[in-house]
Amino acid sequence: MSKKFRIAIAGASGYAGAELVRLAAAHPYFDIAAVTSEKSAGQSVASVFPNLTGVVQHTFEALAPEALAERADALFLALPHTKSQEPVALCMKAGKLVVDLSADYRLKNVAAYEQWYQTPHTHPALLHEAVYGLPELHRSAIAKAKLVASPGCYPTAAILQLAPLFAKGLVQLDSIVIDAKSGISGAGRSPALPYHFPEAHESLEPYKIGKHRHIPEIEQELSGIMGTPGAVTIAFTPHLVPMNRGILSTAYCKLKTEIKLPELRALYREFYKGERFIRLYEDIVPNPRYIKGSNFCDIGVYADQRAGWVVTVAAVDNLVKGAAGQAIQAMNLMMGLPEETGLTAPGSYP
Amino acid sequence: MSKKFRIAIAGASGYAGAELVRLAAAHPYFDIAAVTSEKSAGQSVASVFPNLTGVVQHTFEALAPEALAERADALFLALPHTKSQEPVALCMKAGKLVVDLSADYRLKNVAAYEQWYQTPHTHPALLHEAVYGLPELHRSAIAKAKLVASPGCYPTAAILQLAPLFAKGLVQLDSIVIDAKSGISGAGRSPALPYHFPEAHESLEPYKIGKHRHIPEIEQELSGIMGTPGAVTIAFTPHLVPMNRGILSTAYCKLKTEIKLPELRALYREFYKGERFIRLYEDIVPNPRYIKGSNFCDIGVYADQRAGWVVTVAAVDNLVKGAAGQAIQAMNLMMGLPEETGLTAPGSYP
Amino acid sequence: MSKKFRIAIAGASGYAGAELVRLAAAHPYFDIAAVTSEKSAGQSVASVFPNLTGVVQHTFEALAPEALAERADALFLALPHTKSQEPVALCMKAGKLVVDLSADYRLKNVAAYEQWYQTPHTHPALLHEAVYGLPELHRSAIAKAKLVASPGCYPTAAILQLAPLFAKGLVQLDSIVIDAKSGISGAGRSPALPYHFPEAHESLEPYKIGKHRHIPEIEQELSGIMGTPGAVTIAFTPHLVPMNRGILSTAYCKLKTEIKLPELRALYREFYKGERFIRLYEDIVPNPRYIKGSNFCDIGVYADQRAGWVVTVAAVDNLVKGAAGQAIQAMNLMMGLPEETGLTAPGSYP
Amino acid sequence: MSKKFRIAIAGASGYAGAELVRLAAAHPYFDIAAVTSEKSAGQSVASVFPNLTGVVQHTFEALAPEALAERADALFLALPHTKSQEPVALCMKAGKLVVDLSADYRLKNVAAYEQWYQTPHTHPALLHEAVYGLPELHRSAIAKAKLVASPGCYPTAAILQLAPLFAKGLVQLDSIVIDAKSGISGAGRSPALPYHFPEAHESLEPYKIGKHRHIPEIEQELSGIMGTPGAVTIAFTPHLVPMNRGILSTAYCKLKTEIKLPELRALYREFYKGERFIRLYEDIVPNPRYIKGSNFCDIGVYADQRAGWVVTVAAVDNLVKGAAGQAIQAMNLMMGLPEETGLTAPGSYP
Repeated sequence: MSKKFRIAIAGASGYAGAELVRLAAAHPYFDIAAVTSEKSAGQSVASVFPNLTGVVQHTFEALAPEALAERADALFLALPHTKSQEPVALCMKAGKLVVDLSADYRLKNVAAYEQWYQTPHTHPALLHEAVYGLPELHRSAIAKAKLVASPGCYPTAAILQLAPLFAKGLVQLDSIVIDAKSGISGAGRSPALPYHFPEAHESLEPYKIGKHRHIPEIEQELSGIMGTPGAVTIAFTPHLVPMNRGILSTAYCKLKTEIKLPELRALYREFYKGERFIRLYEDIVPNPRYIKGSNFCDIGVYADQRAGWVVTVAAVDNLVKGAAGQAIQAMNLMMGLPEETGLTAPGSYP
Repeated sequence: MSKKFRIAIAGASGYAGAELVRLAAAHPYFDIAAVTSEKSAGQSVASVFPNLTGVVQHTFEALAPEALAERADALFLALPHTKSQEPVALCMKAGKLVVDLSADYRLKNVAAYEQWYQTPHTHPALLHEAVYGLPELHRSAIAKAKLVASPGCYPTAAILQLAPLFAKGLVQLDSIVIDAKSGISGAGRSPALPYHFPEAHESLEPYKIGKHRHIPEIEQELSGIMGTPGAVTIAFTPHLVPMNRGILSTAYCKLKTEIKLPELRALYREFYKGERFIRLYEDIVPNPRYIKGSNFCDIGVYADQRAGWVVTVAAVDNLVKGAAGQAIQAMNLMMGLPEETGLTAPGSYP
Repeated sequence: MSKKFRIAIAGASGYAGAELVRLAAAHPYFDIAAVTSEKSAGQSVASVFPNLTGVVQHTFEALAPEALAERADALFLALPHTKSQEPVALCMKAGKLVVDLSADYRLKNVAAYEQWYQTPHTHPALLHEAVYGLPELHRSAIAKAKLVASPGCYPTAAILQLAPLFAKGLVQLDSIVIDAKSGISGAGRSPALPYHFPEAHESLEPYKIGKHRHIPEIEQELSGIMGTPGAVTIAFTPHLVPMNRGILSTAYCKLKTEIKLPELRALYREFYKGERFIRLYEDIVPNPRYIKGSNFCDIGVYADQRAGWVVTVAAVDNLVKGAAGQAIQAMNLMMGLPEETGLTAPGSYP
Repeated sequence: MSKKFRIAIAGASGYAGAELVRLAAAHPYFDIAAVTSEKSAGQSVASVFPNLTGVVQHTFEALAPEALAERADALFLALPHTKSQEPVALCMKAGKLVVDLSADYRLKNVAAYEQWYQTPHTHPALLHEAVYGLPELHRSAIAKAKLVASPGCYPTAAILQLAPLFAKGLVQLDSIVIDAKSGISGAGRSPALPYHFPEAHESLEPYKIGKHRHIPEIEQELSGIMGTPGAVTIAFTPHLVPMNRGILSTAYCKLKTEIKLPELRALYREFYKGERFIRLYEDIVPNPRYIKGSNFCDIGVYADQRAGWVVTVAAVDNLVKGAAGQAIQAMNLMMGLPEETGLTAPGSYP
């Protein structure tokens, strides 16, 4: 297992890309062969991300998928949604391992993709080859996959916090409300008025109420756990919170039959037994500040027995377990490496 | 109407108290007779709240309710919950106008108070004399009242965002989820670990899930609007958000029958017609940064028609419409002054 | 004095413009005749600044200086530097009162302007007619002026914190260091990478070290106080601090002869005697949070007698005393109104 | 070099302690034998620092220096100033390697210690055995030391940013101004009003002007570089900035003779040649956000040639290079390990 894999990171000048570079640079079995960025081509990585000064010597290059695939054994694509369809196909054709961080290969249903992303899908066949890259749900499929579609940040939290309940078929399907909150890095690195500091600071903004593109992913996976495609419809409201990183997802649902809290928690412990990156809380409530910079997904289950609701809370770092870390976790599996390789650093405090 | 009222503010060294002093100092019909604080007795207001340097010359004194009542025509009590029962009773006995900002006179049901606040109520008779101080719902009763119990910050947002739906009896009563978020000033001015800057910054914390003391207030008022005491039970989760001020409340419910969004919005416009401090948004979503320092409650109604949920969003400044401003709004009514007197300043931006 | 002045605000879709509108709307002797914005022409003010919903009914229009001047008695121009030269000249020609918030008429020395702003000045004659709009230094000249050049935000703090020392000729001229810090709103409302929330949060950035365009203003005014143009040269480093508003300026200098702290403070009290908007602190240190939203300039004088330095600290709200408030303060003087008209609201806390 | 050292961390429930635990847990040659905390004795580390859940299994114990020394080969003491004198002496007596993070053994001059810390020093002899733990200046002495006094956070930045100039004797000694800014974690983990979120947010506070206890450390080391004890006196003003972590130090000085910027920068490159944790910037200005969580000290040299000042800027993470990381860096040297062991992770971005 001492062999190193040559890896390439495309679209590395966004925040998820920067995290991929940071984590890849410290990964014992990765050699970074190339990093690409259209916007920053020709600039050194360190000049764009000064945190990496003295750590990474690379220079961004423009993306040429086929040439890139030749220089790498495995590729991470962190391109904008809809822009990843073709590069993925080219890398697959070259026989490489691919983890795609865009949404382009996450939805199994082509029509759903085309409706939510308002663009045709040019490689529908590949959709069925792609595995949804949530190792806690699809570990063995990922290990065998050539193409993994890495989940969105909100879905990572939302699916993991609800999966044990859906696996047991406990949830009243018309009762699911997911109120999610994200730090501003979730909006990407392109300046725009809503993310301009004086607009986003001392501010708290719900957006795309019931219309966020992460909805179909969450519904697909929760339905999948139940074995009934299309079964699940959720109310989902994301909010922008004035912090840099982190997602907190607060999910509400009713159960078909009353189950006491200790039993619910036992069910979660059982479901996530042995999972390296799931941490279950009882007395403490998950909070993004406990997982910043780490690949953990922290989950807590609480019951509002008076009102008859189960409330679950999940926290992930949107750029690590919600993006770069999870992509590497999947790639480790695809490469036959221990899943946690290069991902064990805890968050710092505070 | 040129006569000035002598007012006193008890418990003025907290954040709500500081806002009362700031607003009262600029109120054209208020003369501040006294401000009290146990903790800061003997110190000048300006030394505790330097923003008021050169604006207010008062010195905090210790609270002596009866003596205080003699020096004032009207009193604002911003004392801790459970500590206001007796001072209110003494001021009432002295025949003064009282707005109490604590929870001590908000709940009509003594048993509910004693259960949620874990303390006996020593003046249950006064509970029925007290009017819940939300002018948009109880304007005429407030105008006739001697004692007003000013609402909590979360309830102000939650009740106002849902009232029009409950007034029409539209809501499925088992479907109500209120996910509320507050700036840290909502936790008061006493230092404690959860509010220590490095703990609360880059942090997002759900707390008292299903157990917050504002729950019975919200349920009481929403049930009251329906005319059916005890009818309403809500799931309620408050969150601490890293900003100084502001509450954002995101409420989810299902309707008994489908109603199109334009009709719902018309219903809100009708319900809040002529209300000076309610602003209804459609294209814009309420955000605490639009109301900081002002007495507005901004409300938006959105529909997730795909999933069958109505989502309402409300924003208030927890220290103004959620505390000091609302208390003055009620007092204005009690004094026969125009309701908006001293409260018309909009928030600044950003 | 009950007559109202028709005022126009040009360039009102930036942050200083928004403050001008907010303050003008509450000013008892102003009628807002028009607000202009190239970027937002045709949009309602409330849609751009939702805090003003229900407060201001105006719609932004494109700037046409001559037509605008006809509709107003007095004009505030909050246009970008170098873009104000011509509009000012046109308004002056129309015989109106003008307060210009740009840098275009601040420097008396045409060559200095052309060097620091890298553009020719097309109306050098008007430069000498313009009065530098710091009422604490130039009150009587402002009262007689038709054209006032309102100071920059950093200079307001820096000049006011040092003026008393320079008025007495106490300062060693080769010892002046001004380390200034600003909230991000000081950078304006146009999104750009350095002000993108995730870049500016948990960040602290010195910029334009020794090269900021506010330097010649500070040097001109401090030299002017001494009566020796060109006498003063300063080291000046501005920093961007992760907060919305406020400037804190920490200035260091050595004195020609040792003066004890109480004597220095007495000198400041004497210099600023009767000033409505200067607050002097001793036990407390000025902090932007005490002046947010207000027109105060808070100043403290401290001595590091061990090391032989005098340290003065000044805080202003960059958008009020550092921009819109100061502009109105000057306009009040030009109109013969009490200087503090419409400017007496203290900041809120916290 | 495969042998592991048993290490103990005393005072581990503060922020520097938490960083020591985090970094020690990932250090390939450290076995954590014990962690102590008076306040949290009996509680698991993970319950106090949830970021370490699943990472560290230890429970805090009360400090018993002699017993602790028996169980460890090397000790990190992160106790409050003045409380470390005795424990250090006991651990030294037991023949262990000690890195003390308090100020108790930093000052060579007993009288200076007693004056600045207002307490007698009970082990003055040990003061002379202690080495000031800045590896970039005292590497070989540290490697031979049994006791290292790890520098304060401000001094780390201030000394490193000025050392090259002092080593060449270039600085006018009466011209040194250090304006330093720290994130709030620098104030420790004990809640108090100035660090209460609503007080510290949207706030910027100079404090202890000319009186901060880090002054004598900086003066001692800069004088030491020149070889003239007592030669250096500085003006030093620390400021609290609303961010969690990071120190930015902006230092101003005049040189005895004019030196062009490229030459100055060459001098810095030469002085810090081969230094693993010093990064020199030219086009970019150091900013705490580039070094968060890492052991780097970023330095930039700028010249304000117009005004005749050299401005240097340094950034460190107050809890890593300014505390825990630097302590481990010194301990690595004392243990004969490569200096950077366990310290190579770069900061994350953003």
